[in-house]
Amino acid sequence: MDKKLLKTIPNESVDKDYRVEITIPEFTCLCPEKRDQPDFAVITITYVPDELLVELKSLKYYVVKFRDKEIYHETATNRILDDLVEVLKPRYLKVKGDWNIRGGIKTIVEVDYP
Amino acid sequence: MDKKLLKTIPNESVDKDYRVEITIPEFTCLCPEKRDQPDFAVITITYVPDELLVELKSLKYYVVKFRDKEIYHETATNRILDDLVEVLKPRYLKVKGDWNIRGGIKTIVEVDYP
Amino acid sequence: MDKKLLKTIPNESVDKDYRVEITIPEFTCLCPEKRDQPDFAVITITYVPDELLVELKSLKYYVVKFRDKEIYHETATNRILDDLVEVLKPRYLKVKGDWNIRGGIKTIVEVDYP
Amino acid sequence: MDKKLLKTIPNESVDKDYRVEITIPEFTCLCPEKRDQPDFAVITITYVPDELLVELKSLKYYVVKFRDKEIYHETATNRILDDLVEVLKPRYLKVKGDWNIRGGIKTIVEVDYP
Amino acid sequence: MDKKLLKTIPNESVDKDYRVEITIPEFTCLCPEKRDQPDFAVITITYVPDELLVELKSLKYYVVKFRDKEIYHETATNRILDDLVEVLKPRYLKVKGDWNIRGGIKTIVEVDYP
Amino acid sequence: MDKKLLKTIPNESVDKDYRVEITIPEFTCLCPEKRDQPDFAVITITYVPDELLVELKSLKYYVVKFRDKEIYHETATNRILDDLVEVLKPRYLKVKGDWNIRGGIKTIVEVDYP
Amino acid sequence: MDKKLLKTIPNESVDKDYRVEITIPEFTCLCPEKRDQPDFAVITITYVPDELLVELKSLKYYVVKFRDKEIYHETATNRILDDLVEVLKPRYLKVKGDWNIRGGIKTIVEVDYP
Amino acid sequence: MDKKLLKTIPNESVDKDYRVEITIPEFTCLCPEKRDQPDFAVITITYVPDELLVELKSLKYYVVKFRDKEIYHETATNRILDDLVEVLKPRYLKVKGDWNIRGGIKTIVEVDYP
Amino acid sequence: MDKKLLKTIPNESVDKDYRVEITIPEFTCLCPEKRDQPDFAVITITYVPDELLVELKSLKYYVVKFRDKEIYHETATNRILDDLVEVLKPRYLKVKGDWNIRGGIKTIVEVDYP
Amino acid sequence: MDKKLLKTIPNESVDKDYRVEITIPEFTCLCPEKRDQPDFAVITITYVPDELLVELKSLKYYVVKFRDKEIYHETATNRILDDLVEVLKPRYLKVKGDWNIRGGIKTIVEVDYP
Repeated sequence: MDKKLLKTIPNESVDKDYRVEITIPEFTCLCPEKRDQPDFAVITITYVPDELLVELKSLKYYVVKFRDKEIYHETATNRILDDLVEVLKPRYLKVKGDWNIRGGIKTIVEVDYP
Repeated sequence: MDKKLLKTIPNESVDKDYRVEITIPEFTCLCPEKRDQPDFAVITITYVPDELLVELKSLKYYVVKFRDKEIYHETATNRILDDLVEVLKPRYLKVKGDWNIRGGIKTIVEVDYP
Repeated sequence: MDKKLLKTIPNESVDKDYRVEITIPEFTCLCPEKRDQPDFAVITITYVPDELLVELKSLKYYVVKFRDKEIYHETATNRILDDLVEVLKPRYLKVKGDWNIRGGIKTIVEVDYP
Repeated sequence: MDKKLLKTIPNESVDKDYRVEITIPEFTCLCPEKRDQPDFAVITITYVPDELLVELKSLKYYVVKFRDKEIYHETATNRILDDLVEVLKPRYLKVKGDWNIRGGIKTIVEVDYP
Repeated sequence: MDKKLLKTIPNESVDKDYRVEITIPEFTCLCPEKRDQPDFAVITITYVPDELLVELKSLKYYVVKFRDKEIYHETATNRILDDLVEVLKPRYLKVKGDWNIRGGIKTIVEVDYP
Repeated sequence: MDKKLLKTIPNESVDKDYRVEITIPEFTCLCPEKRDQPDFAVITITYVPDELLVELKSLKYYVVKFRDKEIYHETATNRILDDLVEVLKPRYLKVKGDWNIRGGIKTIVEVDYP
Repeated sequence: MDKKLLKTIPNESVDKDYRVEITIPEFTCLCPEKRDQPDFAVITITYVPDELLVELKSLKYYVVKFRDKEIYHETATNRILDDLVEVLKPRYLKVKGDWNIRGGIKTIVEVDYP
Repeated sequence: MDKKLLKTIPNESVDKDYRVEITIPEFTCLCPEKRDQPDFAVITITYVPDELLVELKSLKYYVVKFRDKEIYHETATNRILDDLVEVLKPRYLKVKGDWNIRGGIKTIVEVDYP
Repeated sequence: MDKKLLKTIPNESVDKDYRVEITIPEFTCLCPEKRDQPDFAVITITYVPDELLVELKSLKYYVVKFRDKEIYHETATNRILDDLVEVLKPRYLKVKGDWNIRGGIKTIVEVDYP
Repeated sequence: MDKKLLKTIPNESVDKDYRVEITIPEFTCLCPEKRDQPDFAVITITYVPDELLVELKSLKYYVVKFRDKEIYHETATNRILDDLVEVLKPRYLKVKGDWNIRGGIKTIVEVDYP
């Protein structure tokens, strides 16, 4: 969850509006209320790049940092959006967190920018 | 079905319009015409929060109260919408009830606000 | 196919525009050209009620009456729409008939009102 | 349900043991307890022919006769087996009836010979 | 869970060994440890009848009685087997309980007789 | 591919705009470049009839005539559209040809009128 | 259907018993009773080669020859087995013909050798 | 990975051989070679209990302890088996680890006892 | 990746706006950072032709040339678009690259013209 | 295809017979008859290790070497088996190659040892 981990590469096709969709099926963090019960989610990031693309390996290091963090579903999804928007300054960006069932209830959180 | 059971938590990202989708696959109530024949449904709640988020554990206690209640499909779906709108005062809220087949007929009821 | 079989119940949420979708996976009638070859379909009725809801058990009795009727796909689908519109006076109503394959050809008929 | 409707054709490959599987996805009969509630099933017949094959069009006429017959799931499945065994005298024959859900309960009946 | 609710009908094809499979997708009971957290399961009963078949409507009344009972997964599955064996005296009988996920863990219990 | 084979029946519900979708999963023709390599496709015809409906059996005879014809994917799809438009004079008509993989490449062609 | 079209290549691993499964999803022939109604099937050939493997391109030419042939389901399936057994002299060979639905009835024929 | 965490409850149906299958879809540990790359798996435990059943909540605490452990796929799967066999002394027990794809390669490890 | 490999054929239906969708499920290239780790993707090209259609066999030769090329996901997808737009001068063209998972992350890139 | 690339690691659970299944969904080689037409397959290796496990990264390097090799389906599948058997000396080993469709024909080759 340290946005300084996020690295970028220049977008060679900056003249076009095109869409990149990145799916991270192995996201995990800790439940803020019961530390012994980790949470699991599939995170999907969709964006239209401006001058920068996110470097995939650095995105992975960034995501792994949530593993030991106690954080709510809504907060985690909004945080990933805020960090990526600050680093990439994209034309458009959306983050969708599709969280595994807990106590018989399933939750999806979806945020976009702008 | 007692809306006082519904608790809220503050929305930390109130500056953004974002979507939360909650699926409750284990909803059950009683058929008003034949008490010995329970009804089963998957309830999906989709909303854009304003200042409040619904607290998930309280939502669960609220939902379990339908277990011993005799209520029609259309009434139950509208009731959940009305209770959540009153408590959350959301920017948008939709409730979808996808009811199991009865007598060879399957029913879906979908209500939204505003 | 006798529309007098269709019974209604009052819509308790007449102040809202909401959608009811009813699926009847076990519809059968007779082919007008070869009586010994029955036809089978899945009928889906979607409507936005005004003052009346269709009572599900009566809908079933209505539908079973097609079992011994010789009728074309297009005619049956339009007939169900006409009968339901006359009885329910809904804000919106659609009937979709998804007919099983015959002679290597599959047909779907979809009619809506208004 | 009149076994005299079943016609046969000679098996040209009587020297081999081979398997024929016939699926009839559009079987319907009437419930013996409530005539207004038809039953629906997928019937699968698997057999190793001896000297005779069942002629498919005649099998269809035979099956359509159940449409107006009040009969239990177990009885219908056993009846089809008995009729086919008597007419085909096969080396092996199995009938599986996979009945649609009724009152929230689904039933499969499977009989074989010998 | 009262086995006196289970009614039987005579097996007309007692000369054959045949298989009946009954699926009840809407089983629910209460968790013995937290009454407010109901449990849900799909129960599948497979049996080779001897002189008796279970009457389906009575099986449904029997099953609905678990709705307000606090009982463990393993105990419920074994109880259904014991009751059906005592009432039907079948040649063979198996009960499979496929329980919904709880705390990120899913459980299946499968018992057979003899 | 002889459009004189296409027969019509009058549309009894000419006062309504409704949609008919016909799927022919068993379309085959010959590849113009290698006669020994037949092509296979699923053809879907969707239309809003005006005064005429296509008679399904005649549509089948029309389609079977492609079996021995050497024709390109794009040409076949456009030809079916042109013939049906000329014969039916529909309010709207679309033909979609979904062709099986050839040389590791799969093709879909979709044309509509007007 | 001319078995002289079938070519073979030597099996380089003749010391091992191994299984080759070939699926031809685009098989078509003509119905012997109504020439205007072609039949379609998926043919699956499974064999344990002895000294010879079937050459795939030649198998394709062989199969295409059925396109203009009037032949019954059972006969076609047995014929393919007989021709392949004669040409390949395999340790084991099975042919399965999975025929598309006709008149609401689906048929599978499965023959094996020895 | 501390087997003292595993608690048991007495098996009330010790007179029967029955099967319990437990699926844990959210297993995660660390890769021994690159700590920054966690591994994910679905673990399925199938057993025939003797005198003891595993208590599910304790199984969860046991499993969560792998979250910060560097361990190979084969070692983790064998370890879970060894620990459960020692604690439960079951009549039969199998552990299957179905590991997510890494470097384009997917691995399943399956161990059983005795 | 040599656009001179792309051949065209004249569009016989230039008076209509119609859509052609071509899917290449077997695309592979090399990762620019680790040559020993090839990348795999499904490429889908959708276009509305003007005067020219792409000849499918030449498209295949063009695509195979990527096999030994080190290229990034975003660059490859944009390159295919640019080459096809230059050669076909289409009314509309879209390229979608759906890349296999790498390091637990899946990527889709989608570009369109104009 | 150079078996010296295959590295091993010691099996820590040599006292147990357990099964490891490795799936490589991205296998590709060249067709010996037309170099410009690459072949694609999913390779599944299942084995019961004796004293050695295959090291996964080395297996990947070994497999990538097939990328530029012209080889038949049956030969490639047998070669992988022979190389792994020689290097691992396993208690049991099976290789299954599930090859993509070519010319409308799909092939699976399955070899096992001993």
